[in-house]
Amino acid sequence: MKNNFIIKKILKNITDVVGNGKISLHEPVFWGNEKKYLSNCIDSTFVSSAGKFVDSFEEKIKKYTKSNYVLATNSGTSAMHISFIVSDIRKNDEVLIPALNFVASSNATIYCGAIPHFIDVEKKTLGVDAEKLYNYLKKISKKKGNHCYNIKTKRRIKALIPTHTFGHSVNLDKIIKITKLFNLDLIEDAAESFGSFYKKRHLGTFGRMGILSFNGNKTITTGSGGAILIKNKSDFIKAKKLINVSKISHKWKLIYDGIGYNYKMSSLQAALGCAQLENLEKIISKKYKLLKKYKNSFKENFYGKIFEQNDFRRSNYWLQTLILNENCSKIRDAILERGNLKKIQLRPVWRLMHKLKHLKKFPRMNLAVAEKLERRIINLPSSIYN
Amino acid sequence: MKNNFIIKKILKNITDVVGNGKISLHEPVFWGNEKKYLSNCIDSTFVSSAGKFVDSFEEKIKKYTKSNYVLATNSGTSAMHISFIVSDIRKNDEVLIPALNFVASSNATIYCGAIPHFIDVEKKTLGVDAEKLYNYLKKISKKKGNHCYNIKTKRRIKALIPTHTFGHSVNLDKIIKITKLFNLDLIEDAAESFGSFYKKRHLGTFGRMGILSFNGNKTITTGSGGAILIKNKSDFIKAKKLINVSKISHKWKLIYDGIGYNYKMSSLQAALGCAQLENLEKIISKKYKLLKKYKNSFKENFYGKIFEQNDFRRSNYWLQTLILNENCSKIRDAILERGNLKKIQLRPVWRLMHKLKHLKKFPRMNLAVAEKLERRIINLPSSIYN
Repeated sequence: MKNNFIIKKILKNITDVVGNGKISLHEPVFWGNEKKYLSNCIDSTFVSSAGKFVDSFEEKIKKYTKSNYVLATNSGTSAMHISFIVSDIRKNDEVLIPALNFVASSNATIYCGAIPHFIDVEKKTLGVDAEKLYNYLKKISKKKGNHCYNIKTKRRIKALIPTHTFGHSVNLDKIIKITKLFNLDLIEDAAESFGSFYKKRHLGTFGRMGILSFNGNKTITTGSGGAILIKNKSDFIKAKKLINVSKISHKWKLIYDGIGYNYKMSSLQAALGCAQLENLEKIISKKYKLLKKYKNSFKENFYGKIFEQNDFRRSNYWLQTLILNENCSKIRDAILERGNLKKIQLRPVWRLMHKLKHLKKFPRMNLAVAEKLERRIINLPSSIYN
Repeated sequence: MKNNFIIKKILKNITDVVGNGKISLHEPVFWGNEKKYLSNCIDSTFVSSAGKFVDSFEEKIKKYTKSNYVLATNSGTSAMHISFIVSDIRKNDEVLIPALNFVASSNATIYCGAIPHFIDVEKKTLGVDAEKLYNYLKKISKKKGNHCYNIKTKRRIKALIPTHTFGHSVNLDKIIKITKLFNLDLIEDAAESFGSFYKKRHLGTFGRMGILSFNGNKTITTGSGGAILIKNKSDFIKAKKLINVSKISHKWKLIYDGIGYNYKMSSLQAALGCAQLENLEKIISKKYKLLKKYKNSFKENFYGKIFEQNDFRRSNYWLQTLILNENCSKIRDAILERGNLKKIQLRPVWRLMHKLKHLKKFPRMNLAVAEKLERRIINLPSSIYN
């Protein structure tokens, strides 16, 4: 009886904001030059891996993020894969990855023959708990030469891949300190965080590399696509070659002088991206209006709280997030079920990494906070319509 | 002096067909509903991995090729990678690949931890020489249980990946016989062969799987993209899951229950593909007109010959091909250099696989014909403009 009351109240607080009928979790908006640029792209006949729209898209992202180098790719996952190869993540290296996460960074680790090692997150940022990680690494690792090794497995711990969850930054100052102390490469998973900053600097530009996603469900989209933000020129040169099948540059020779990948973003996708970029700030300001509406609606709801960014603003508020009270976590599934039955797309957070069939066997620390959060997070409809 | 005369004559025979000025090797043509469908795609808001255009594109390819199952992917390379995983090509398996080839199938083999094993081609088809392969396998392999093993390396020889070069079919009857005799999986690299048939059946539908490419340089394009043609339902189900990050199907749960890849074609790319498909036959008929023009122009050229399809017609004549006489092979580079200087995009065939830095170390048979052809092939401008 009580549960039913809570479920109804939560769903009412949601529909008061988004209305009834079919409400999707996150739809892209096409307010500007999308059709025009696609049409220009067709007229140019350069719809594939070459063409001015790819260059232009990379240039615009570079300017916006102030990244030293930018490469547009055909997905966030491929961006991740290449950044791992370039930072020399090898067979049997361990890679530190938050358990509360999308599966791409774990999969990319496995593509490299490396080992995901799962770490806990904190309630405040929904991202890596830096202090817990520090204490854990002090206990389980040892420095030898320029590298950090897992005492127990003897494997090199090569990199830390924090995810800026739902667009909210992790505590980068602390994270960077840890990567320096333990000689880890920092590669930021900023897939959800285009338009998000940490102390006025764009996410993904703090580590050796960072990756973005422009999948259809993201703040802005290229259909499918991603990008690598790169700090060093030598990494940029390597990555640029790898995503283009390791083709050597020559007027007419067709030589591919190393293992390579077909990961470039197409000009068609980039044309869409160029148009989308023009409305980014407008979209984000609407995200803040939506947040305000949700906060207002949930003001007197004592069963859950709308998640708000930490003080490292600014978040892009990609997905609005309800954190249920601990004692309401048992009705999470019922809320999701009921909401989706009413055609309101509510989503749980991803099943935690160490619970997935193919990732169960990998090492992990105590993941108490991630476990708790998994039971309590519900992502709310986050589209911006006007 | 003589060489200069030959180079000039060949270039004149080319420009007599394609004219002077900037002439590209292969440009796509957009004659129909390209802009309309892209616009519809934007209006639908489904520009990413879901959306009716992907379903529709797959359905149209299925109908055209008469393949049992079709999956659209974000590249031909990813189509190849998935077909290799699905057909259980594993670490240390050997995979038979023609040396005269684009590098994708060799790279996909390496992605799987397997070993490319290079085989020779024949002059008649520019593809796998079936008789030479038969004699070679008789000598170097042994059947054990349901599998074929390399006597020397002890490794399993798992699959044969013939490439239908430039759209021209290999001798499939003989190839199929070999795969049956030696228990090899047949996966056809039909990347260049959309619109090509062998005895009235579409290429890529003979083996367990076949792959297509819709890259910008192909007969029709989706910007970037590919497809897997699949014979068996169980392979189709596996592949469909793998290209969608191994996500389980559920109303709201976010569970990924195995290693997965982000390889789906986006709806935006598929929208372009749907429009392109509508003009496929018109494009191919123009290819035949172009062939006729080249044949006519080179009729009295005694230094090289325009390549014509074998009797397994119909080829899509993706790229028009000049085969230089053996004794003219030493001026191939000069012709390429001079043509490209005049902004006429002439191309050599790909550098042979066993000569590429990362592929040198792999096993191979005698590759005398591939070596000869490499020196003699020049691809001619093959665009259709009106």
